[in-house]
Amino acid sequence: MEFTFSRIMEQVKPSEIRELLKYASQPGMISLGGGMPNPGSFAVEEIREIADYVLENYGALALQYGNTGGYDELRKQLAIFLGEMEDIKTDARNIIVTTGSQQALYSVGKILVNQGDFVITESPTYIGAISAFRACGIRMEGIPMDEQGMKTDMLQASLEKHRSQGIMPRFIYVIPNFQNPSGYTMSLERRKHIIDLSEEFDVPIVEDNPYGHVRFSGTHLPNIKTLARDNRVIYLGTFSKIMSPGLRIGFVSADESVVGKINLLKQGLELSGSTLTEFIAAEYLKRGIMKRKIPEVARMYGKKRNLMLKALEDYFPDWATWSKPEGGMFVWATLNEKINTSKMIARAIENKVTYISGASFYPEEPRYDSMRLNFTFPSDEDIPIAIQRLAAVVEKEAKAIEVSR
Amino acid sequence: MEFTFSRIMEQVKPSEIRELLKYASQPGMISLGGGMPNPGSFAVEEIREIADYVLENYGALALQYGNTGGYDELRKQLAIFLGEMEDIKTDARNIIVTTGSQQALYSVGKILVNQGDFVITESPTYIGAISAFRACGIRMEGIPMDEQGMKTDMLQASLEKHRSQGIMPRFIYVIPNFQNPSGYTMSLERRKHIIDLSEEFDVPIVEDNPYGHVRFSGTHLPNIKTLARDNRVIYLGTFSKIMSPGLRIGFVSADESVVGKINLLKQGLELSGSTLTEFIAAEYLKRGIMKRKIPEVARMYGKKRNLMLKALEDYFPDWATWSKPEGGMFVWATLNEKINTSKMIARAIENKVTYISGASFYPEEPRYDSMRLNFTFPSDEDIPIAIQRLAAVVEKEAKAIEVSR
Repeated sequence: MEFTFSRIMEQVKPSEIRELLKYASQPGMISLGGGMPNPGSFAVEEIREIADYVLENYGALALQYGNTGGYDELRKQLAIFLGEMEDIKTDARNIIVTTGSQQALYSVGKILVNQGDFVITESPTYIGAISAFRACGIRMEGIPMDEQGMKTDMLQASLEKHRSQGIMPRFIYVIPNFQNPSGYTMSLERRKHIIDLSEEFDVPIVEDNPYGHVRFSGTHLPNIKTLARDNRVIYLGTFSKIMSPGLRIGFVSADESVVGKINLLKQGLELSGSTLTEFIAAEYLKRGIMKRKIPEVARMYGKKRNLMLKALEDYFPDWATWSKPEGGMFVWATLNEKINTSKMIARAIENKVTYISGASFYPEEPRYDSMRLNFTFPSDEDIPIAIQRLAAVVEKEAKAIEVSR
Repeated sequence: MEFTFSRIMEQVKPSEIRELLKYASQPGMISLGGGMPNPGSFAVEEIREIADYVLENYGALALQYGNTGGYDELRKQLAIFLGEMEDIKTDARNIIVTTGSQQALYSVGKILVNQGDFVITESPTYIGAISAFRACGIRMEGIPMDEQGMKTDMLQASLEKHRSQGIMPRFIYVIPNFQNPSGYTMSLERRKHIIDLSEEFDVPIVEDNPYGHVRFSGTHLPNIKTLARDNRVIYLGTFSKIMSPGLRIGFVSADESVVGKINLLKQGLELSGSTLTEFIAAEYLKRGIMKRKIPEVARMYGKKRNLMLKALEDYFPDWATWSKPEGGMFVWATLNEKINTSKMIARAIENKVTYISGASFYPEEPRYDSMRLNFTFPSDEDIPIAIQRLAAVVEKEAKAIEVSR
């Protein structure tokens, strides 16, 4: 038989990243696509020891169904972690464990937004947020960014316009630290401004902070959640970048009413997450491995960022620009508007290098002049080679366009 | 601030099961609620050894992001498993791994049904399917059951009525083996009839088979998927009852178009499942532990079923009836219509025994005269004690009603 699919699935498109993963494994290919942590950052031996300890001592519990909200000890440890590392005063009751922060994104979309309503995001923004919100049937309005993060004066103008029309966004979604894909970090001033706007217009903030711990230069800025005067910030965290994405440990710290609704939804989505990986993550925190590993990971990625920035200086054309992230995983390189990076990708693959074209990251009308370059996954040796290969593709593309005019 | 939640969440209610779990841990309480496998059925030592092997040999991969569709080797092993154990001829391309079969239920609801449309289920039916479908904004129509499973003559009448009105259900959801909550098994004749109806009315079938492997008496019946003449059956399986629910390994075997849509949705829901637990499950299949364990689990549960049926004979009043399941995890006991099992539960908890009231399992208007009794989780010793306690509550309730008339 021919299956008829629901209307909402018409809006859900295959992600270019997932498609590109096929090429990433071709021999000789260097991938600057994906958003994968370096496997060298995984504390494999410690995790192995912990898995063994957990199964030896808690086998019957760690293999059984768990709480929908997450293993109690993990939520307790998360509250301590958020207090110590993020200056977020929270409590196990205000925390729910999610299957990666991807599930948290889908959940906030689902519990706070009616199908057809809209939210505000940065533009460009995280591709996973776009796919989660699309799967929820949510429209998005993107607010442009510069090196200080989302342009909050434009956010203000937008909110004023919407208020005058009587239809408000259901939340404002931001990634303040080393944003994906731009690498930009929101300034302290704008963090404060966004809180003021949230209060004035009564719109909650969803703060996504997957990379905040991975800072290799500059000064730590307080989270929006920390700066907020009340419960209006829903904070999303994950261990995918600092411990292991394969365990799928994400979490939300928020008002109890929000946590309660996510819990209800999660019962329908998956009943509960993996008890085994939750036990492992709790023990990892308890043993203090997380705290010890984070600076190591930051050092490893800082070196890779430096290698990529140097290679861009060395090989990329003068007229290209790129972000200089103080942390995280990505550089955002912008070429000339005449170059379509979505089309150029075929040539890059021929030249044994991949990236994600900028168009994937726009919540509304895409721009085609940028690309996201990941520096955490490739080896130190491969980074300059990849950039050199990519630069050759860019130069050729630029010439071809000159010729065809 | 006060959060405003989406309209769809108004339909998503806390599950009684999840609420009851709180009481389940009180000292002296015997729980016949929940749907948990017995921890004694877990191959803890083998899983421990496999976890160690996986992390020693595949650490960098098993801790990394995985494929949205699931680890390739696991899908390959699943195809073999389905062929050998279920006589389902399938291929890795037709399989997607899900976070428990709960995620599969949510996904089929989401990809096949528009919000506001309806599906057909058995009545009563699995509480997790109800919560998944409600979270999707799906209406349900329940078709009554008897000991031969869903009454397919009533299904036929319903489909004819809907066709005359021009609004068809988007799929028919059935649990043919040892149904949850009823314990009934659909007869071969009705399995064939449901396929005929699916063809005649062009409505796909979602076949959920979490307990099929756990048969302790009677004769195995072929799956609807096996009997179907084409691709119209979407088959849902899980390792939660035969290996471990804490690993959250479910899967769907279906037409490639269906698998592709679930994959797209899953990118938005959680990006990918736990790579680590997928590696463990693949190795567990590969080493043949699953095949060895299944008869052991069936023996363990068969004994518990016998203990429960005997205790019901011994202690329950003459006028009560109950199902005699040939497999699975549940007995469905029906009292007198004057007894409301949802209200009676408070007295049961006082008497240190819990169950799930029948009302939770109705997709439309609930009935209050039944209860679901789980026999897999309690110890052999506790089963007769629990039934004796429960019988005392029932007798008291019956007397009180007589008195109050």
